[in-house]
Amino acid sequence: MSKEKVGITVSKKDDFSEWYTQVVLKAKLADYAPVKGLIVLRPDGYSIWESLKNTFDKKFSKNGIRNGFLPVLIPESLLGKEQKHFAGFNPEVFWVTHSGENEVGDRLALRPTSETLAYTLYSKWIKSWRDLPLKINFWNTALRAEIKATKPFLRTSEFLWQEGHTVHATEKEAKDEVITILDIYKNTVEEELAIPVITGKKSEKEKFVGAVYTTTMESIMPDGKALQMGTSHFLGQNFSKPFEVKFADKDNVEHFAWQTSWGISWRLIGAMIMVHGDDKGLVLPPKVAPIQVVIVPIYNQDEDKKRVWEKTEEIKNQLESKSIRVHIDDRNELSPGYKFNDWEMKGIPLRIEIGPKDIQKQKIVLAKRYNKEKIDLDFKEIEKINSILNEIQTKMLEIARDQAKLNTFDISNYSEFKERIGKGGFVEAYWCGKQECEDKIKEETGADIRVISFENENKDGNCVYCNETSIEVPIFARGY
Amino acid sequence: MSKEKVGITVSKKDDFSEWYTQVVLKAKLADYAPVKGLIVLRPDGYSIWESLKNTFDKKFSKNGIRNGFLPVLIPESLLGKEQKHFAGFNPEVFWVTHSGENEVGDRLALRPTSETLAYTLYSKWIKSWRDLPLKINFWNTALRAEIKATKPFLRTSEFLWQEGHTVHATEKEAKDEVITILDIYKNTVEEELAIPVITGKKSEKEKFVGAVYTTTMESIMPDGKALQMGTSHFLGQNFSKPFEVKFADKDNVEHFAWQTSWGISWRLIGAMIMVHGDDKGLVLPPKVAPIQVVIVPIYNQDEDKKRVWEKTEEIKNQLESKSIRVHIDDRNELSPGYKFNDWEMKGIPLRIEIGPKDIQKQKIVLAKRYNKEKIDLDFKEIEKINSILNEIQTKMLEIARDQAKLNTFDISNYSEFKERIGKGGFVEAYWCGKQECEDKIKEETGADIRVISFENENKDGNCVYCNETSIEVPIFARGY
Repeated sequence: MSKEKVGITVSKKDDFSEWYTQVVLKAKLADYAPVKGLIVLRPDGYSIWESLKNTFDKKFSKNGIRNGFLPVLIPESLLGKEQKHFAGFNPEVFWVTHSGENEVGDRLALRPTSETLAYTLYSKWIKSWRDLPLKINFWNTALRAEIKATKPFLRTSEFLWQEGHTVHATEKEAKDEVITILDIYKNTVEEELAIPVITGKKSEKEKFVGAVYTTTMESIMPDGKALQMGTSHFLGQNFSKPFEVKFADKDNVEHFAWQTSWGISWRLIGAMIMVHGDDKGLVLPPKVAPIQVVIVPIYNQDEDKKRVWEKTEEIKNQLESKSIRVHIDDRNELSPGYKFNDWEMKGIPLRIEIGPKDIQKQKIVLAKRYNKEKIDLDFKEIEKINSILNEIQTKMLEIARDQAKLNTFDISNYSEFKERIGKGGFVEAYWCGKQECEDKIKEETGADIRVISFENENKDGNCVYCNETSIEVPIFARGY
Repeated sequence: MSKEKVGITVSKKDDFSEWYTQVVLKAKLADYAPVKGLIVLRPDGYSIWESLKNTFDKKFSKNGIRNGFLPVLIPESLLGKEQKHFAGFNPEVFWVTHSGENEVGDRLALRPTSETLAYTLYSKWIKSWRDLPLKINFWNTALRAEIKATKPFLRTSEFLWQEGHTVHATEKEAKDEVITILDIYKNTVEEELAIPVITGKKSEKEKFVGAVYTTTMESIMPDGKALQMGTSHFLGQNFSKPFEVKFADKDNVEHFAWQTSWGISWRLIGAMIMVHGDDKGLVLPPKVAPIQVVIVPIYNQDEDKKRVWEKTEEIKNQLESKSIRVHIDDRNELSPGYKFNDWEMKGIPLRIEIGPKDIQKQKIVLAKRYNKEKIDLDFKEIEKINSILNEIQTKMLEIARDQAKLNTFDISNYSEFKERIGKGGFVEAYWCGKQECEDKIKEETGADIRVISFENENKDGNCVYCNETSIEVPIFARGY
């Protein structure tokens, strides 16, 4: 194995796209499946998903949301019941036409999303106010045939996600749920993946087909492109009417219910790779790292082996007793240098080096992945490693916040706007609220309205495109 | 709501099939999806699956198995690479022929099982002995179009399962893995679901297509039909050769690897329903029950309400502090009697009744679901509830073992054999080992060889069919 082939061969700055793909493949997070546009997750990639899933499940559960299971096949007739919704997905749907040698009657769609299926069932399950709120989440995959170039985690024809579907007696309760979920999304992504996000509304043009409005969380990637990190939709009664999701209130009067749907996907893993990775490869936030600390024992002579190994095992046990995920690299045939590069490429947050000299000095060498800092740590201070991991997690979010700020621009002049969009980044600009301007901007610059931030209060200005009085300050960007 | 409609309307003994379906639907475990043969899991059903999943994940992890993700679409050409394997699944495969308006080239199969897909990837991932053993498990669904009448959990065209795929350097290691997994399956099913199983080998005829041999765990259901509860296959080099799953050993000599695959599905939930349920509905083993204890506060007059509620909350907190899953039934508009029936139908292991008189006497009434026993428990003894739940779990397994024993018969005479098979049950009988006899028995009685038990040592007898010298003592039965 030549070293060139093993490591990342391009820099993040020079060829972001190739760098990304190499990190995904060489850090063994994922691989391509035999069908174009599909990927496979290897254990190191899937364990990040499992970690996120566990965190979300705990938070969903606290909010009264329980999990369920829906099949992947939806009859064409059902999918078409909400017309706008169907039109949005139609070109991307995979169709099952045969089982064995037999034709199926009504063609079967592979789930592009499950609103139509879930609400058909909800209309059977909900009879009275007693059955509300109904809050079910589904961890599954969605299938949408991608025509554009696919990219692991970011654009694939099947992707892991969760889709939550809730039903409420009142409009207010449903609207509150939309925000509760968006908050759960935001704090999980920031706390677990150390990625800052901006939350707000989508424009009418960019909202989920079938929703009354869509709230979203967006991030700016180091290459200046925006990434949608999750959405939470207020569906109003758009689905409850065609699907007859009705309930009898306490006075036995029937009403159509109010609904929400929301989802995040493995895109979050793609974002994590892009935001934190560097020229040596992946950089994992400690909270989601399958291995948090890797120990590389170093010795040349057999006489040292026993001592080094004893100490290595001792440290491992100490760390495991603190619930730290530790791995010892026991590969005899590889050099320490090779091992260092290998674990750096895989993004393991902390590396411990321990050799005979370290044992003499009663210390270990600790190498932090995210900033490449090396420090000595006394044997007596091993228990500090927990707080060092926490500190790394915090610092990574700070650095990512600073990066995002540097990539965010406040612009009021259209020619500056065009120039900036060409270079990438989030661009905040006044907007009159008309889709005509939104369309023209997209046509002329390639930028969409990514999010109309909840935080941007100052709307008094002139539309960056038509110069009329503005009513919003959206964030524009070219997106993934 | 009339009481007749709400409860189970047939007895388990009189109409087992209808009883089963009513329990599934009325206990709100599952419902039918709009596509024939497909079901949906409601939260109470899915949480049983999640509980099993958590237990298996812990045990798999201890055994060095990690989880991954595979897409649902497999190209036809790949599926056909191992011919025998393909022939076995071909009639059941759902085929995707279009995405949007476009025809896909090579037809895409919806995963009937993932050997061919996984091993295509394994052949890329495995280079040397360092990469072995490779042990990955996938929690997903399998899709096999069912032509026969479908039944929730037991026979559906899409089902939740896990499929594990391991690769080893030696034959022995792979064979040992097959048994390790079968043991994990057996102890999980017995300890969590309180269902006794018999483990052993399948006959050549009944083995998994593509396996060298299949080990299985089987149970006898109360209606006398056998249910396959899980299988663990030794694949030998049957797949490693066509898929080129090879590794270089320490001397850099290349070898084909040795493989296993294994799976359990939501059938286990079906078995749990059948084995433990009764005329009142579901009976849940405490370990997998989403709610372990339901508290029904009882009061007629407003003056009692406060006292009863205070005590109810207090008991709830006491139990939750012991990690017991508790629910208070606070539905004012329903009578205690209605509530009792409702929770009995849902199979909640323990019900606590608490009213003003109980509070006076400083005690609660405890109703056990599995044997309908009612006992008084002093307020001071609340902490005993944990051990009562454990006792219920143990007793349920004992009862199920006794049931299974009553349904197991040792028979050497073929006319007795035929009669017994007609009535149902596990029938142990001597067998010469020839498929001819196995085929004839199937033809004449409808019984398959379910399992050749590991425990049956005494093979000296005469084949129940041809009277020649026996070499095995399989268990015959009609199956699901």
